Amino acid sequence: MLIGKLLYTRYPCAKILNINTINALEIPGVIAVLTHKDVPGENSYKYWYDDHPLFVSDTVVYQGDIIAAVAAETEEAAIAAINAIEVDYTPCDGIFDVHDAMKPNARRVWPDRDNVHSHLVIERGDLKKGFADADVVVDHTYQTHLVEHAFMETEGAVAYTEDDKSMVVYTSSQTPHRDRKQIARALNLPENMVRVITPFIGGAFGGKDEAHVQIHAALLAQATNRPVSLIRSREESFLTHVKRHPVTIHYQTGATKDGKLTAIHVVSIGDTGPYVGAGEEVMGAIASVSFGVYKVPDARLEAYTVLTNNPICGAFRGFGVPQITFAIERQMDHLANKLNMDPVELRLKNCLKTGDRLPTGIVIREAGGIKASIEEAAKTFGWNRRKEESEPTRPSQYRGWGVACTLHPVGLGHNVEDHAGAAIDMAPDGSITLRTGAADMGQGVHTILAQIAAETLGIKVESVKVFKPDTSVTPDAGPSVATRQSYISGNAVINAAQPIRKSLLLVASEETGLKPETLSLRGGYLHAEDEQLNYTVSALASKAHQRNLPMHGDGYYAMRFPGEFPVDGYPYANHVFCYGTQMAKVLVDLETCEVTIEDFVAVHDVGKAINPQSVRGQIMGGITQGIGYSLMEELIVENGQTQNLSLDSYLIPTSKDVPRIRTKLVEIYEPDGPYGAKGIGEPPINPTAPAIANAVSDALGIPIDELPITPEKLFELIKHT
Amino acid sequence: MLIGKLLYTRYPCAKILNINTINALEIPGVIAVLTHKDVPGENSYKYWYDDHPLFVSDTVVYQGDIIAAVAAETEEAAIAAINAIEVDYTPCDGIFDVHDAMKPNARRVWPDRDNVHSHLVIERGDLKKGFADADVVVDHTYQTHLVEHAFMETEGAVAYTEDDKSMVVYTSSQTPHRDRKQIARALNLPENMVRVITPFIGGAFGGKDEAHVQIHAALLAQATNRPVSLIRSREESFLTHVKRHPVTIHYQTGATKDGKLTAIHVVSIGDTGPYVGAGEEVMGAIASVSFGVYKVPDARLEAYTVLTNNPICGAFRGFGVPQITFAIERQMDHLANKLNMDPVELRLKNCLKTGDRLPTGIVIREAGGIKASIEEAAKTFGWNRRKEESEPTRPSQYRGWGVACTLHPVGLGHNVEDHAGAAIDMAPDGSITLRTGAADMGQGVHTILAQIAAETLGIKVESVKVFKPDTSVTPDAGPSVATRQSYISGNAVINAAQPIRKSLLLVASEETGLKPETLSLRGGYLHAEDEQLNYTVSALASKAHQRNLPMHGDGYYAMRFPGEFPVDGYPYANHVFCYGTQMAKVLVDLETCEVTIEDFVAVHDVGKAINPQSVRGQIMGGITQGIGYSLMEELIVENGQTQNLSLDSYLIPTSKDVPRIRTKLVEIYEPDGPYGAKGIGEPPINPTAPAIANAVSDALGIPIDELPITPEKLFELIKHT
Repeated sequence: MLIGKLLYTRYPCAKILNINTINALEIPGVIAVLTHKDVPGENSYKYWYDDHPLFVSDTVVYQGDIIAAVAAETEEAAIAAINAIEVDYTPCDGIFDVHDAMKPNARRVWPDRDNVHSHLVIERGDLKKGFADADVVVDHTYQTHLVEHAFMETEGAVAYTEDDKSMVVYTSSQTPHRDRKQIARALNLPENMVRVITPFIGGAFGGKDEAHVQIHAALLAQATNRPVSLIRSREESFLTHVKRHPVTIHYQTGATKDGKLTAIHVVSIGDTGPYVGAGEEVMGAIASVSFGVYKVPDARLEAYTVLTNNPICGAFRGFGVPQITFAIERQMDHLANKLNMDPVELRLKNCLKTGDRLPTGIVIREAGGIKASIEEAAKTFGWNRRKEESEPTRPSQYRGWGVACTLHPVGLGHNVEDHAGAAIDMAPDGSITLRTGAADMGQGVHTILAQIAAETLGIKVESVKVFKPDTSVTPDAGPSVATRQSYISGNAVINAAQPIRKSLLLVASEETGLKPETLSLRGGYLHAEDEQLNYTVSALASKAHQRNLPMHGDGYYAMRFPGEFPVDGYPYANHVFCYGTQMAKVLVDLETCEVTIEDFVAVHDVGKAINPQSVRGQIMGGITQGIGYSLMEELIVENGQTQNLSLDSYLIPTSKDVPRIRTKLVEIYEPDGPYGAKGIGEPPINPTAPAIANAVSDALGIPIDELPITPEKLFELIKHT
Repeated sequence: MLIGKLLYTRYPCAKILNINTINALEIPGVIAVLTHKDVPGENSYKYWYDDHPLFVSDTVVYQGDIIAAVAAETEEAAIAAINAIEVDYTPCDGIFDVHDAMKPNARRVWPDRDNVHSHLVIERGDLKKGFADADVVVDHTYQTHLVEHAFMETEGAVAYTEDDKSMVVYTSSQTPHRDRKQIARALNLPENMVRVITPFIGGAFGGKDEAHVQIHAALLAQATNRPVSLIRSREESFLTHVKRHPVTIHYQTGATKDGKLTAIHVVSIGDTGPYVGAGEEVMGAIASVSFGVYKVPDARLEAYTVLTNNPICGAFRGFGVPQITFAIERQMDHLANKLNMDPVELRLKNCLKTGDRLPTGIVIREAGGIKASIEEAAKTFGWNRRKEESEPTRPSQYRGWGVACTLHPVGLGHNVEDHAGAAIDMAPDGSITLRTGAADMGQGVHTILAQIAAETLGIKVESVKVFKPDTSVTPDAGPSVATRQSYISGNAVINAAQPIRKSLLLVASEETGLKPETLSLRGGYLHAEDEQLNYTVSALASKAHQRNLPMHGDGYYAMRFPGEFPVDGYPYANHVFCYGTQMAKVLVDLETCEVTIEDFVAVHDVGKAINPQSVRGQIMGGITQGIGYSLMEELIVENGQTQNLSLDSYLIPTSKDVPRIRTKLVEIYEPDGPYGAKGIGEPPINPTAPAIANAVSDALGIPIDELPITPEKLFELIKHT
């Protein structure tokens, strides 16, 4: 196996005059050096948008642009080859400020394209009337920052050619089937001759949604006809992959004096870097939930996707919703302040109810989880008794309490491919193999799907073997993103189990003389009504095989969309939403400007929780990542170059940074979900930052409208107040 | 990876007093020595019949019985360990003659079981009346011999434990899913935790239908927790696996003087060795086709399965039909001689017609291929002009012409699990992955299935990737035996393609505005009636994926059985039959007693030939194996011990032994077959031996009723005439 390495430019903006690989090729042990000239197919990632080349040729637009790929017998030789490639650059002045970039005469990232890549406007009702109806108007600007996924396992792939000439790529990826398409396109192979296998993944959080090194690894394996391992160092990982968009949000809210919202006007500006990638989609997601969990009759929701020479941005747990939730929930606290209302009371007064129409035009099918989660959180947290708490021990310490809510869609939305397959085979002894194309990056979807299969077939979960994604043999389940897999693959698994269940019950009916509709399978046994009969599923399976009954099921599920869909409105819309409320108690010490979280409550409506322990794990993980987002994580970028490219200088929470977290579930059965489930992957990160910011604001009596709330920033804020 | 070896007893009959493995375990590099005590699950192959242990404990009944299994770091250490195992035997007198074994007071193979394991009788009509109606009765006894499959690749397996604790077994096997069940049972694992993978196989011919070393390899891998490779030497292969049954056939035929058959009484006696295995099934198959291609109003067909201490017998291309065909077709020539009729004329006069009832009670749906193949063979061979041939050049040389016909069932028959699954995924670029559980041992079934998939989906065969059998991911297609896979898996593939075809035509209909039923897919393009439209299947596939239409198909097919099935009759019956006629011209030299085949014509009704080249390959291969069976191959067994355990002393045909073979096809469309196909795996071997024997008999004017026709045997025959 050869070791692969990539040459990243590190220039944020430059022209390339020449690339000379001759010296690199002469290093002993170096087998191949590839540049843009060596791509047999299309030299493009072509993800949502087709502007990102696999290898740049004459123009460099961000620090992570890839110039060349090397394969060598040893890592040393590969590194030496990377260092020996001579690239003749003429550096250019880039554009690094998103607001500057939007100006009419700004320097352009691309000569033939406007820096403002897109401007989405979602409008509903009469904004002027809405604001005219308002007794008070609050108007604030919020700023979120650039952060890194910091998954434990960096991006990597091992590629080799199989006996039948298929290109096999093992990779740490959220999207095996999309990877297959992209690899096939670059290698100029038919898709069935590319086999992408995704074993368990050491974290992803959206950062492995887009292809990273798997296409380059495959190109090197194809060029050398040898297996190639290509794994990014932590520094390379920080340098290149998409980050969470920094977003500037102007938020204007009108309300009556008793606290009823009348209008909102929200303008979000996202810096997506030089390649669009999923940027326009992220900004679209931001616009489409800019109202939060609140009913607003008149609304204008705008989102700008802007190009710069900064690091590229894309999917990251929440897909824009954490950014906009920070603004929405800070804005509600500003309004509560202005009205002198309790923040929880204001939220309860305005929260969406089942059947309400959203500003995007769709009617929300079920919204009971919003009010329920606010009430349950307040009760668990002791919101109404919070002021009874004893004073902090030191005079420099201030205590504060904050609340924040979230609404999060399940699935990709309308007009986008959103479907999943799953397949089940039951062996003659009643054990099953469940094949899924859904990548498990630690969120536990394979366990959930095993539980759903076991429940549907009335067997024990121990009798389920889950076969991990392998595009040659597992059905396409789409990407593991958008809080969608438990819901959509779960439904596919239920469908896959049906033919087998039918065969088992047919045999059972023949054996017992009872009608199939009176029979059921539970815990490995046949049941007639509630009575357990002396027939095991295993025995029925054996008989069904002997009787030539189908014991295989292929399940498919395509996401449903709102029945009353606004055809002339916003192009994306969802059928299912998750809700949640989080509350934080913080202690701020003005001597150190440190924020300590003393208590944290999270209440989420996940539909029916298939696996409460894993739901709790997802909530804890999301909050932990949210704490990092709120209090410590930030990529420092100067003129397009990231200054902190390591986990020494980019701090993420350790176990010592995580407070006591109390989680509760509001389980409102979702009729279209598998056994009533919705999802939980993304929602928990959304309200964490605003809950903490609201608590800090409450503690100090000053607005906290910018993230992260580091001691340095807090010190500056206090100094100016 | 460790090297596995098995200790075979080589005693045909003995008691074991003690097995001492201590010395073996002390040899450096030896990791494990397993005996009957070390099987966590059931110590049995449990195939058709449960009498064959994986490891014998106290009784040895044939030379190939397995005493112990060894795993060691090197082959040398493994061999040393095998040699160091001390087994304390008391040899017994075995029973080696099948006719002696049937006698009432014969020595028994098993103390508590009769040596006559089974006696099947199929009776129809009035046998007494049938013979009374006869003008002539011929009565002869035929003897076939013990032969070896001699596949190029000997039996082997590599076993190891996967990440998820599944036992993975790569093996040269015809039956991946049955292997899985047997391995799971022996290892005491659920079936879904065993994964059997069968890559392309270097020949099998029925000899890899029953499990060979795969269970032992898995036991060693489980015991050592290391990968284990266990491959039989050629000598071990000859020593142990099932052979073709030697069968003694008493055949009595009555006919009118104008050559119409009135009655037959056939008694076949098969020596199956000490374990029944598939023996009773082989003898059942013999009984069920003992009438050949001929209509007989009154018949009694008997078959005895007899136990001895000889080598074990089981499946071998033809599954008994070659043996009985030798008898049937020699008998027809005896009758033709007696009636002084042309052998072809006699056959045409008696051959079955569509709608005739067979002695087994079933009505034959289609029999047109019999007459057609006889007529086509006679025409191609020049049967009627054969006597016009010039005399042989030397006075010691005699020329003869022979004909023989065959009828061969497709599939396993009623009351037996006989079904297949197949699965197809179409990628967004229109290329497909076809997953099949059907093992390809050189017969080319994967090519056939790829063609069927391509035809059904209107794509090129190059766009099909066939994924080879792997029980965790490919549907159960049952064993690759009984001339069944093209037919049954072919039908499963057609079914698997339907949902995809439907999705493609739905998109096509939306795109063109034409009705789906007017559209078709051919050669990679959409067609409206006969006009090729400017839409590729690839483009339609991409659109179908985007529109969330299912692009996966799971196909299933269970074998059909005759509509009018004789419930009280023979327990097996088939829905589809293949037919064929072969003709041989031979030159016998009395100086050397050598038989030279001068010309050979084979005409087979295979239904529609999906791949004429591979059909021709199967016919040529079957005839070549049939020539070996006729003229040279024979296992010499003395007191249960095979004397010729190598390809030096057991001769199989080389390219120099194969004459000019002219093949022709009679393609009678089979309405239930995939695109009209039936099958061709087994039929070509059935009539070869009788065609050659009839020709030799014709040349010399003496009966040739025993196989093989070696120079030594011929010399003895001539001496006594």
